[in-house]
Amino acid sequence: MTDATPPERRTRAAQERLRAHGDDAAVLFPSHNLTYATGFSEEPGERHLLAFLPADGDPVFLVPELYDSQVRRATWIDDVRTWSDDGDPAARIADLVAELDLDGGHVLVDDTMHARFTQDLRTAAPDATFGLASEVFAPLRVRKDDAELAALRRAAEAADAVVRDLRERGSELVGETERAVAGLIEDRLAAHGGDGVSFGPTVGAGPNGAMPHHTYGDREIQAGEPVVLDFGTRIDGYPSDQTRTLVFGDEPSDRVREVHDLVCRAQQAAVDAVAPGVTAGEVDAAARDPIEAAGYGDQFVHRTGHGVGLAVHEEPYIVADSDCELEPGMVFSVEPGVYLDDEFGVRIEDLVVVTEEGCERLNETVRGLGVN
Amino acid sequence: MTDATPPERRTRAAQERLRAHGDDAAVLFPSHNLTYATGFSEEPGERHLLAFLPADGDPVFLVPELYDSQVRRATWIDDVRTWSDDGDPAARIADLVAELDLDGGHVLVDDTMHARFTQDLRTAAPDATFGLASEVFAPLRVRKDDAELAALRRAAEAADAVVRDLRERGSELVGETERAVAGLIEDRLAAHGGDGVSFGPTVGAGPNGAMPHHTYGDREIQAGEPVVLDFGTRIDGYPSDQTRTLVFGDEPSDRVREVHDLVCRAQQAAVDAVAPGVTAGEVDAAARDPIEAAGYGDQFVHRTGHGVGLAVHEEPYIVADSDCELEPGMVFSVEPGVYLDDEFGVRIEDLVVVTEEGCERLNETVRGLGVN
Repeated sequence: MTDATPPERRTRAAQERLRAHGDDAAVLFPSHNLTYATGFSEEPGERHLLAFLPADGDPVFLVPELYDSQVRRATWIDDVRTWSDDGDPAARIADLVAELDLDGGHVLVDDTMHARFTQDLRTAAPDATFGLASEVFAPLRVRKDDAELAALRRAAEAADAVVRDLRERGSELVGETERAVAGLIEDRLAAHGGDGVSFGPTVGAGPNGAMPHHTYGDREIQAGEPVVLDFGTRIDGYPSDQTRTLVFGDEPSDRVREVHDLVCRAQQAAVDAVAPGVTAGEVDAAARDPIEAAGYGDQFVHRTGHGVGLAVHEEPYIVADSDCELEPGMVFSVEPGVYLDDEFGVRIEDLVVVTEEGCERLNETVRGLGVN
Repeated sequence: MTDATPPERRTRAAQERLRAHGDDAAVLFPSHNLTYATGFSEEPGERHLLAFLPADGDPVFLVPELYDSQVRRATWIDDVRTWSDDGDPAARIADLVAELDLDGGHVLVDDTMHARFTQDLRTAAPDATFGLASEVFAPLRVRKDDAELAALRRAAEAADAVVRDLRERGSELVGETERAVAGLIEDRLAAHGGDGVSFGPTVGAGPNGAMPHHTYGDREIQAGEPVVLDFGTRIDGYPSDQTRTLVFGDEPSDRVREVHDLVCRAQQAAVDAVAPGVTAGEVDAAARDPIEAAGYGDQFVHRTGHGVGLAVHEEPYIVADSDCELEPGMVFSVEPGVYLDDEFGVRIEDLVVVTEEGCERLNETVRGLGVN
């Protein structure tokens, strides 16, 4: 077992936790848990593609026939069973539930498993009780190993490089639409080695920046208005996620400067607060306190951050009153923001990794407004 | 009510079906059903963002606070309630379940709703029974209206234009990696007015084409080998999905020609079979019969097609023995394929819309191997 692949080692660790909790199995479908435990990646689809991880023994894949060779190549799991498009996958699920003796047991399902598939499991195991697979996978996935950290660093470097590209373009971007800048960001991320985008880029110019989950539209960037730029890419499956708020072509107003300085200070205070044993709630408070003291507390309408790993949003969540204690190897965003309806928004976001002493930023570009 | 928006008209039609079936409500989360019924589009996330459609009365949105203004702008629904990141969304769900009197009732949930949210609904309504929202939405969504058809046609035109671009490049593509060609396809789709890709492009050169769900890798395209090219884009939210199998730079082998001709004939036979009242199973058989007669039945390892609408894969599924009767306005793919392990694959796919008399192809490019 010394030469087990990382996915096999992770599966064995997950099975140990299943046994410790008295769970009988975890059932995964295309998700980050599946990638983590098996090495096979796929998008959720409408076909039954499930991996059964019993608490004891070897896992079993149940996949559509046309995935057979792909799954076998990608995974360390030997027991790959197929069903064909004209067959009845629900019957195959019922067979597996019987074979693994899951009815009457406690079964964890992937947190993101679609209702279509959980309904089939519930039908096949009417006397089972159900929980969520994050119970066993979240504690494993929350502390990144060296290979995961290396991928996260490279993804962060690609995002950093694109921020520098945007700063260099400066006043050239005045008059461009948010949509065009989003396209430019995607092109530059690829040019710096990224594999697609880890989420649809946000380019929020002027008042559009005041909507925290605006993506981009047809507004043309105006000289001197702040533009919220939130984007990332993936490298080896791991994402970046970074936000800068920049102005192009003219000096911003004093009000923009004041709010930007405030958000910068809040972000630095939160980063300074990160260390093992500190709670996520304390980091959230470190970001929130200066913003509240300046009278903008009601305009900081979201949490301070979220964990980042195979999923762009995962544990630990940096939210008010969370008593989740930070541990070395955790990676999360620190991204306070202030949103002034119909005026503008400012958000600044870096990823950090918790170290033995405190933390390190994965993003290294400066955080200034960057007028030029 | 004569000036109701399309999403409102669709919601009222869904409510009528809920009442006819004796269902008490449908609960949607970010999905195509949600876009269809409310006009609001979002990707599934880890935050509770739900729309409750009771069988009678007006729908209620429950959204994270930071989505408030976006949701209000996008939807016709007035009753938008928010919860904040530091609140307890499960408690808000329990409140709504009580207010709408759903416990003990029959509640439909979005087919793609994540287990995380269905668990909260089940906890809030322990005496309710659950079904899938497709029961009411699939019959509505399966027949496209004129606005939907117009968007599907434009998306198909953009994919057609990219096939022509690839044919024109011809031998220039020899030596390019599958990955580079996938990037070229994405760029050209955007150049022809498409909004991103409707799914990750497949560029399956030589033996990689024999894996039906291969996407792309680092293989360089060789002169004379068949390359399976399967891609699409979106326009106004509606996707294209088309496959051509092309060779570049040299003549293919006789065996490649023979298999390609066979798949072409099978695809034409299936398209010729489409008409109102014909079953999906009969269309599947029309594609499968010539392939089986030629001795390649076991190498046609997937269904003949799938419906296409807001989802790239939706009803009707063109599968063996399906007794689903085709109706005017249905749109689906016709995509037989033959996959020869370690050799090559051939797939040819067009979208068709069922008309009063038969069907029309939405894709208009030629289907030949296109050697040049």
